[in-house]
Amino acid sequence: MKKFVAEFVGTLWLVLGGCGSAVLAAGFPELGIGFVGVSLAFGLTVVTMAYGIGHISGCHLNPAVSVGLWIGGRFETKELLPYIVAQVLGGICGAAILYVIATGKAGFELGGFASNGFAEASPGGYSMTAAFLTEVVMTFIFLFVILGATHPKAPVGFGGLAIGLCLVLIHLISIPVTNTSVNPARSTSQAIFAGGIYLQQLWLFWIAPIIGAILAGVVYKNLSPAD
Amino acid sequence: MKKFVAEFVGTLWLVLGGCGSAVLAAGFPELGIGFVGVSLAFGLTVVTMAYGIGHISGCHLNPAVSVGLWIGGRFETKELLPYIVAQVLGGICGAAILYVIATGKAGFELGGFASNGFAEASPGGYSMTAAFLTEVVMTFIFLFVILGATHPKAPVGFGGLAIGLCLVLIHLISIPVTNTSVNPARSTSQAIFAGGIYLQQLWLFWIAPIIGAILAGVVYKNLSPAD
Amino acid sequence: MKKFVAEFVGTLWLVLGGCGSAVLAAGFPELGIGFVGVSLAFGLTVVTMAYGIGHISGCHLNPAVSVGLWIGGRFETKELLPYIVAQVLGGICGAAILYVIATGKAGFELGGFASNGFAEASPGGYSMTAAFLTEVVMTFIFLFVILGATHPKAPVGFGGLAIGLCLVLIHLISIPVTNTSVNPARSTSQAIFAGGIYLQQLWLFWIAPIIGAILAGVVYKNLSPAD
Amino acid sequence: MKKFVAEFVGTLWLVLGGCGSAVLAAGFPELGIGFVGVSLAFGLTVVTMAYGIGHISGCHLNPAVSVGLWIGGRFETKELLPYIVAQVLGGICGAAILYVIATGKAGFELGGFASNGFAEASPGGYSMTAAFLTEVVMTFIFLFVILGATHPKAPVGFGGLAIGLCLVLIHLISIPVTNTSVNPARSTSQAIFAGGIYLQQLWLFWIAPIIGAILAGVVYKNLSPAD
Repeated sequence: MKKFVAEFVGTLWLVLGGCGSAVLAAGFPELGIGFVGVSLAFGLTVVTMAYGIGHISGCHLNPAVSVGLWIGGRFETKELLPYIVAQVLGGICGAAILYVIATGKAGFELGGFASNGFAEASPGGYSMTAAFLTEVVMTFIFLFVILGATHPKAPVGFGGLAIGLCLVLIHLISIPVTNTSVNPARSTSQAIFAGGIYLQQLWLFWIAPIIGAILAGVVYKNLSPAD
Repeated sequence: MKKFVAEFVGTLWLVLGGCGSAVLAAGFPELGIGFVGVSLAFGLTVVTMAYGIGHISGCHLNPAVSVGLWIGGRFETKELLPYIVAQVLGGICGAAILYVIATGKAGFELGGFASNGFAEASPGGYSMTAAFLTEVVMTFIFLFVILGATHPKAPVGFGGLAIGLCLVLIHLISIPVTNTSVNPARSTSQAIFAGGIYLQQLWLFWIAPIIGAILAGVVYKNLSPAD
Repeated sequence: MKKFVAEFVGTLWLVLGGCGSAVLAAGFPELGIGFVGVSLAFGLTVVTMAYGIGHISGCHLNPAVSVGLWIGGRFETKELLPYIVAQVLGGICGAAILYVIATGKAGFELGGFASNGFAEASPGGYSMTAAFLTEVVMTFIFLFVILGATHPKAPVGFGGLAIGLCLVLIHLISIPVTNTSVNPARSTSQAIFAGGIYLQQLWLFWIAPIIGAILAGVVYKNLSPAD
Repeated sequence: MKKFVAEFVGTLWLVLGGCGSAVLAAGFPELGIGFVGVSLAFGLTVVTMAYGIGHISGCHLNPAVSVGLWIGGRFETKELLPYIVAQVLGGICGAAILYVIATGKAGFELGGFASNGFAEASPGGYSMTAAFLTEVVMTFIFLFVILGATHPKAPVGFGGLAIGLCLVLIHLISIPVTNTSVNPARSTSQAIFAGGIYLQQLWLFWIAPIIGAILAGVVYKNLSPAD
């Protein structure tokens, strides 16, 4: 039970921190944090929670991460579904808190609410094919780094930094393409509030990250078995 | 006594560094550091002092942190008040040094002096309710991460990084809402110099962070007891 | 064989992440990441892969690094050529993925595709002499730091951070001069797609980095022998 | 002898990297790194060299650091002068390399060449008093953090990160005031090339940092003796 509470709080923080920085601070006149600040924010939610709850739940915060670790032989089958449920619920709760804060400003317009999207819903207008490829490859590398940095032969303690900084990097590259998901829980929470096209496109941000995660689990397990 | 000197110097640095970067460098024409730079500055005051005085006083630098650690069972009752006094005095001293430096530029206008505020004193015009919620939630997570990253089961030595980077992240999200407090000492030092509306609103930046810290202490202690 | 797969994936990531951030995100209107974001991206590809594959292949990702470690007495002669082949192939594969993603945006123009160059192909119009000197010196320091941070007397585990942050720093300085190479594999992959002047100038980005790496290997071995 | 070579190379890198990022990249049109990038660059020169040469010379790279460590009882008297000579020579060599690179661009104007200054030579027009106070206080905290983070009770290995990030922070605050020195070697190397008012004001950037360093040595030794 403690594991699920930890995943719930952690994913709440990932969504509130990452999407919150995008909604509240990215475009602030003159002093706004831009994509660099949003990238840092997403990654630091993982860095902070890795050290905050890593010893409780392993700090997945992401259904694709749980699936990738399961395929890679590092996570038990029976915990997969409860983890994903806790992550999605935590994400929705984080988005709800953000919604209350953001609407505390007169004239706030919801817009995409930091949702993920492609084609006309892509920040830079990238096609569905480009978006799909981007999400598969970015999640593949994300899981590849997670499986490596938490490997018994990797230096102890540095995993949280390496994995969080990997998420910073993934955002530095791919915000213009899909607004960066690599995390179906984060995509779901925002699409529920934004609705419309963002809900219609949500399927891609479950399928593509999970394909990338499965591929990474298979490849890394052959490259460097943990046992 | 050494602990109180350490907390005094550390909080002086938090205010001089964090608020100093905001007052002196955030809006510098063309090359200014913006909210990203100010966020980094606040967080790095904690990173640097965590390794500088962590072994002396534990490096709280913040009354809400001391309260949260006390509720969480990690800090002794008898030291709570002296720590808070040292933090507030250190913060005021930091603000005084900043005042002398900032007024060394011809035409300097005090303005808010990096104070915290809501409604018309909020950088982005956020309501009192949004500000209150933001400060409670941000301080809750801050203490949650602090209690986790300093837990006996967390990797040794990384606490200072994780906690400081958490403060970076909190600023990346919430500067537009309240100018980010999560620290009553930092709010008090600036309000004393800025006066007016900032002094009138100071109550919120004591109450909300301390509520968030108490909640985190209770939740984390149940989630992962240190003993 | 596993080592070569690791170097292939790692260099793919270096090129896709570093050059990808430059092509996709650097100049995004208003919110773009600029040279600071591109510098972070290049460096974080190394940080993430250092913890991801460091225990498999050592995480060179760069022919100049392999040569410098070989001269410095830390890498076996028989593995030098296979490593360089894997790095160049991985880089080309990363550039190909980036090409597919980037062309998923209507109206995309290839331009230099984040290639390296000097004189009229230098971002800031720097001469061939300035470019040559820059690449020699930057690679010299890069290898100097690599040889130091992986030295038996250096703190265990921090090498990946120090080396990746060194690459961040090198980009912060030298993007305006040559678009920063210090890595012949990264230069080759982009020049193949960009063609023209970038292919004609590619020689400099093999010769200068390797000269710098050789010098560092010689100097550091005398300064601080590993055995 | 190896120690002096290490200090020479390290200070060369501090000047080439820190001042180089300012001269070459800070004001690049649209994509320039600004004060945030320059702050990162200065700090990362120290992070990288801390892990590169820390086990050889201790990585001072700064006469004020050597003086502060000597006052704090961590550095031998007989090595003080040779270290300072190596640092100043390394800094000048770094500035010379930067000069050759920078003049490789047609139309380059030397200007202040990233020198330190006050009054009309201050980036933001700050008075001599403000500049003096800033340099004393910033160097005091810098040495305070150095003495703490390298203390036997501090976590092993993190010193290089904490100290380098302290230099990032110091720049985020004080570039507008004095262009940030806290390092007489860095000030000397640039003033030699820039000449004029920068040479005339150089005295302040020897005296103020060294006063700050001495104060920190005295205070920290009483607060937390190393033995």
